[in-house]
Amino acid sequence: MQLTNIVTMERMTFSDAPCSIARSLDVLGDWWNPLILRECLYGVHRFKDMQHWLGIGRNIITRRLSLLVEQGLLDKRQYQEKPDRYEYHLTEKGYDAALVLVAVMTFGEKWYFERGQEPIQLYDRDTGISVSPVIVDADTGKPIDIRRLYAGPGPSFPEDIEIGKEWFS
Amino acid sequence: MQLTNIVTMERMTFSDAPCSIARSLDVLGDWWNPLILRECLYGVHRFKDMQHWLGIGRNIITRRLSLLVEQGLLDKRQYQEKPDRYEYHLTEKGYDAALVLVAVMTFGEKWYFERGQEPIQLYDRDTGISVSPVIVDADTGKPIDIRRLYAGPGPSFPEDIEIGKEWFS
Repeated sequence: MQLTNIVTMERMTFSDAPCSIARSLDVLGDWWNPLILRECLYGVHRFKDMQHWLGIGRNIITRRLSLLVEQGLLDKRQYQEKPDRYEYHLTEKGYDAALVLVAVMTFGEKWYFERGQEPIQLYDRDTGISVSPVIVDADTGKPIDIRRLYAGPGPSFPEDIEIGKEWFS
Repeated sequence: MQLTNIVTMERMTFSDAPCSIARSLDVLGDWWNPLILRECLYGVHRFKDMQHWLGIGRNIITRRLSLLVEQGLLDKRQYQEKPDRYEYHLTEKGYDAALVLVAVMTFGEKWYFERGQEPIQLYDRDTGISVSPVIVDADTGKPIDIRRLYAGPGPSFPEDIEIGKEWFS
């Protein structure tokens, strides 16, 4: 990993957006938050170990850990006194976010690595067999063909927003 | 959506990281790129329409569209001459990224909206029935229990990186 440049971002909050993707991006639309969640998923729970694996500065991690605790994705647990030290563990919400990362991983393996050359593999703890994540429709069990989806307004779609005709194309 | 502040980010490139999540975050770990892909998925292909739906400045969209074309997620197609105008359509890679957004959507619906109060619904074009995305293991068809996964090195894991004992915990 290389530091390319320091960029200025137009930071928004999407917390009131009528879109579950946008609201999720408040915490997941970032370079570091997902990687910290990844570390926790891989069993890395302590500040020093995260710093080692991520190779980034203290202040970047500190800020992200606070946010992830505040947003309810990580649980901060003290494991030592004098000096006080803490571990960070995925909450239920954090595990759900980590599941999204599994979908990201599948995307990345396909597009950024040769088949059979994946750097990391996920295994089932019970069976020890590697898992192959795929997104299916819960009702039919069939893989979702993203090209065959269209979007429509749901129950809480704001009444004052006119639906685009594009949506039904 | 509200502009909260202009922040300075430590921008990295993850293009050489031995991790498919990190490499994917090069393009997906951002607030705007995923939302532009969302618009394309919803059938919004033109600059002006994206600007309307996203409510953001020209330069933000312009920069992101260039990046998404350059990274192979969007295809730029001319639809008018004098003045020249273009539409942006998802490529195969873009559709795969949009599928990740479906996983993000599922996460966001659970954690940021009341059940049954989703703002957007996805439907199958053929049947008109709403779809319920879930991530399963392709081999067993069972939903992936993220708590029961562990990570191990895959075929291209760099030899010079010592595996953390945490990984097998």
